Amino acid sequence: MPSCIVLGAGMVGSVIASDMCRDFETSIADIRPQQLAAAEARAARVNPGRSIHTIAADLSDPAAITKLVAPFDLVIGALSSKIGLAALGAVIAAGKNYCDISFMAQDSRELDAQARAKGITCITDCGVAPGMSNILAARGAMMLENCTHLEIYVGGLPRERRWPFQYKAGFSPADVIEEYTRPARLVEHGKIVVREALSEPELLEFDGVGTLEAFNTDGLRSLADGLTVPFMKEKTLRYPGHIELMRVFRHLGLFSEDAVDVKGASVRPLDLTSSLLFPKWTYQPGEEDLTVMRVEARGTRGGSPASVRWDLFNLFDRETSTTSMARTTAFPCAIVARMIHSGRFSRPGVFAPEVLSDDPETLAHIMREHEARGVRYAFTSMGV
Amino acid sequence: MPSCIVLGAGMVGSVIASDMCRDFETSIADIRPQQLAAAEARAARVNPGRSIHTIAADLSDPAAITKLVAPFDLVIGALSSKIGLAALGAVIAAGKNYCDISFMAQDSRELDAQARAKGITCITDCGVAPGMSNILAARGAMMLENCTHLEIYVGGLPRERRWPFQYKAGFSPADVIEEYTRPARLVEHGKIVVREALSEPELLEFDGVGTLEAFNTDGLRSLADGLTVPFMKEKTLRYPGHIELMRVFRHLGLFSEDAVDVKGASVRPLDLTSSLLFPKWTYQPGEEDLTVMRVEARGTRGGSPASVRWDLFNLFDRETSTTSMARTTAFPCAIVARMIHSGRFSRPGVFAPEVLSDDPETLAHIMREHEARGVRYAFTSMGV
Repeated sequence: MPSCIVLGAGMVGSVIASDMCRDFETSIADIRPQQLAAAEARAARVNPGRSIHTIAADLSDPAAITKLVAPFDLVIGALSSKIGLAALGAVIAAGKNYCDISFMAQDSRELDAQARAKGITCITDCGVAPGMSNILAARGAMMLENCTHLEIYVGGLPRERRWPFQYKAGFSPADVIEEYTRPARLVEHGKIVVREALSEPELLEFDGVGTLEAFNTDGLRSLADGLTVPFMKEKTLRYPGHIELMRVFRHLGLFSEDAVDVKGASVRPLDLTSSLLFPKWTYQPGEEDLTVMRVEARGTRGGSPASVRWDLFNLFDRETSTTSMARTTAFPCAIVARMIHSGRFSRPGVFAPEVLSDDPETLAHIMREHEARGVRYAFTSMGV
Repeated sequence: MPSCIVLGAGMVGSVIASDMCRDFETSIADIRPQQLAAAEARAARVNPGRSIHTIAADLSDPAAITKLVAPFDLVIGALSSKIGLAALGAVIAAGKNYCDISFMAQDSRELDAQARAKGITCITDCGVAPGMSNILAARGAMMLENCTHLEIYVGGLPRERRWPFQYKAGFSPADVIEEYTRPARLVEHGKIVVREALSEPELLEFDGVGTLEAFNTDGLRSLADGLTVPFMKEKTLRYPGHIELMRVFRHLGLFSEDAVDVKGASVRPLDLTSSLLFPKWTYQPGEEDLTVMRVEARGTRGGSPASVRWDLFNLFDRETSTTSMARTTAFPCAIVARMIHSGRFSRPGVFAPEVLSDDPETLAHIMREHEARGVRYAFTSMGV
């Protein structure tokens, strides 16, 4: 049986490890003992008779990673965005194939030449969005003869809407607030344009969940310069009302990173706001989430209007007590990691997920693997 | 010409002084030189040919007040609520008649015996609300044979509604927030009941301004134990939407006075919130305000349903560049101070304003004096 190691035993890493251990000798590394113990328990619970190995390691040290991954056939990254690029470099240095979901701020493709020199394959950003969104957007553009518009709508939400935020975060409020303050880059008339965060809210209907509100976010990443579609945008979804509150908070300065003097103490309002939001936005034990995503490509085919669309509506998994966020993010990475290992995709270099969109059979395989895990992307088309 | 001194040269004190100097030799005292200069300039501008004297004095020192007021025939208090009670005691010690608007947290009537011993008359809380609201509520109850319900609705608002708060404060945001956190005492079935601040929001229509939203506030004060009406409440008015935002802020903990640790600094969230709200809630030069108040008494008379109601709708005064808040608060105090000085009301002791409600001619006089100053309370009745 081949071996693999998952770097990071957080919510997503532990689900990836549980998935991989069905056909890989799987290890998982983290510096946090409780996270390792939880990942180990989950793997045994979800896959009776199977187990994973846990390794205590400081993954913020690239040299340690290079040494750590040396014995394994395949490496999977589920690390915080802050250390994603350094970990990628360390895995390349070890000469190991790699698939990751770290959502690093930097462009991972800057390490492309190094990966090619080692003859290894690395696919980054390989979760649900970025990840599946990239593959579907690029595939959608290809299915039309002339694709003029690409739109990605995505959101992770609590199933129950509770006053006033109607929102919970699977991660730090500060990272969510980053989406509410960072200007969003979209493409209009073939040019990258920048819009204010939380701008252009629009109401849209989604089966299973009802009306949601979408706002511009900076999520196109590699798609913005990799595709030649004149209009592209990514928007994030929330229950209606949340965006207005966040606009008020931002207007008041609650998201500001500029320290203010408060009765002699110097405080960054964002730090206080994050610490107050943390308990309000944290999922309680057993509190269920859902994931909604829509990727739509519009344009023409044979001179007539045409469009293709994928809709994901996925719920918290009660059987394994796993959030939809963790499952929908972990599975693309686990599926694509196996494709790299099996040689189904074997080009050397560092790639964004849309590299997998060229071959229709590749997408069909990814969809079948998702369905085997209970995650379904519904496809609809017009004129294609 | 008789003499008087106004303690406090803030927004209301300076308007009181401008009013008094028409028929009193008027002095005004404060520790802030700019406020004194502004009060002096205002008095000269509003009353050509008249002037007031300014006195720099520390009014947080009761002994200094007792000494300061000794030469004057009449004393008027327009001080911060924090020093209102101490100032009242100091004026009583000096043996001077007193009318004040300080809205002190304590019950001023605890100094009643001392005032009676000195044979002087003191009326406190004598602004618009508390003040006119007390007089009208008590008068209204008296005009019905059987008054079952007393309701006071009052709000000071900017004329222009601006996103997101639609609110400006003539004073510190911390004092406004106090209204959003302090439990409200109302009377139901003849008993005092306590409701959460910001509770029981209701939409009401007001001529001249449209739909406003009212929430419970702790404004009954002396009325709660002075009248035997089974149902009494005071509610504060805001433009619709403001209350919801304030409820969210409170829910998140932004109004909390319990210090939290923010990256090593100990911060009371209320302090940060107040400092962020201050610039957003401060009236800009020339920005106009308005005052809305409705006092309604309902019950029966001759066995049939009956009600009486007074409505105040008052705008910023462009001629004198004076806020409606300052005018509607200052005038009751200036009018009643004169009534005390002239002996029209001469009972010794410390009184809440409703003591003036017994005699219908007293209210008629107060209304005429208001109308002479351009402030009109519209009266409507049914079955009375």
